Amino acid sequence: MSFSPLIRQLIDALRILPGVGQKTAQRMALHLLERDRSGGLRLAQALSQAMEGVGYCRECRALSEEELCPQCADPRREDGLLCVVEGPLDVFAIEQTGFRGRYFVLKGHLSPLDGLGPEAIGIPELLTRIEHGAFEEVIIATNPTVEGEATAHYIAQILGPKCLTVTRIAHGVPLGGELELVDGGTLTHALAGRKPIAL
Amino acid sequence: MSFSPLIRQLIDALRILPGVGQKTAQRMALHLLERDRSGGLRLAQALSQAMEGVGYCRECRALSEEELCPQCADPRREDGLLCVVEGPLDVFAIEQTGFRGRYFVLKGHLSPLDGLGPEAIGIPELLTRIEHGAFEEVIIATNPTVEGEATAHYIAQILGPKCLTVTRIAHGVPLGGELELVDGGTLTHALAGRKPIAL
Repeated sequence: MSFSPLIRQLIDALRILPGVGQKTAQRMALHLLERDRSGGLRLAQALSQAMEGVGYCRECRALSEEELCPQCADPRREDGLLCVVEGPLDVFAIEQTGFRGRYFVLKGHLSPLDGLGPEAIGIPELLTRIEHGAFEEVIIATNPTVEGEATAHYIAQILGPKCLTVTRIAHGVPLGGELELVDGGTLTHALAGRKPIAL
Repeated sequence: MSFSPLIRQLIDALRILPGVGQKTAQRMALHLLERDRSGGLRLAQALSQAMEGVGYCRECRALSEEELCPQCADPRREDGLLCVVEGPLDVFAIEQTGFRGRYFVLKGHLSPLDGLGPEAIGIPELLTRIEHGAFEEVIIATNPTVEGEATAHYIAQILGPKCLTVTRIAHGVPLGGELELVDGGTLTHALAGRKPIAL
């Protein structure tokens, strides 16, 4: 059996979603066709509106449909504090901590093997942003991976001569869980970064 | 942080897909926005075309954009053999076995607790189809679940007086795997349905 052309086209199109293979795409297509056509139409509209309407924030390079994203447009945030992250979901995660400074969103991390150098991930735009801003501290919150650390190190180096405080988020044991399950590298960082207990 | 309205609307719309929760929808939306906007637009178009263009086959009630689905429109298939299944994906599975008769697609199985009686799953249409056709045998290939068996039994009963051969697909041990892992009910069916070994 072959599905009819429109259904086949829908199944193929659904496969561009991350984590969706042939079987999942079939299930999604038939679910929408048999149970939720109005939802399918809403999804179609939301997709085309977002694909055509969402651009990048002029200041922080986060995805935004306005020229300035909600974080950059907010006048009540601290203008002296800049947090540099690898992607838009990281902004979401850091917002949940109550951080109220400004952001800069890189396009991932440095990865010379994939041909991603400083220009590809937006370092020149970061430098422009810092020059035009009045930042006192730049917090580098790239991921705690090898590539993220290398990117953090690179940024710290080029920001060195600019009379800014450049900091890196702390490494250590995460809250919850058990110490025996924590990997050696993390534990080494946790020991090296130990602090007196405030009483 | 809140995502901007268009991104939030896209994330909400993606959540209607089966198996997609908040985190997966976020990942999908950002993947499309950052890496594959043309794919997102293609998906939007495929969705609206399918939601608006796909109906049901006049004969077998499978999803089809033509009045007759490819299986019903094919003049080379056996007209004496009708296979009754619970849904469109079952047609796909049975086609792969090389079956070349006709199909009838129910809307699921009988489920009195959910208010799904014979009318809701399309039994009247099945009877009409059988009256207008020249079928000699009706193969009931509903799922081997309690509801599927009950549906099969019900259909066999109402087709009883119609001088048709009504058959049910065989139950037994599936190919591959180990006997010790097969459940007792299946093994009982496999023993009861034993056959002489052809030499």
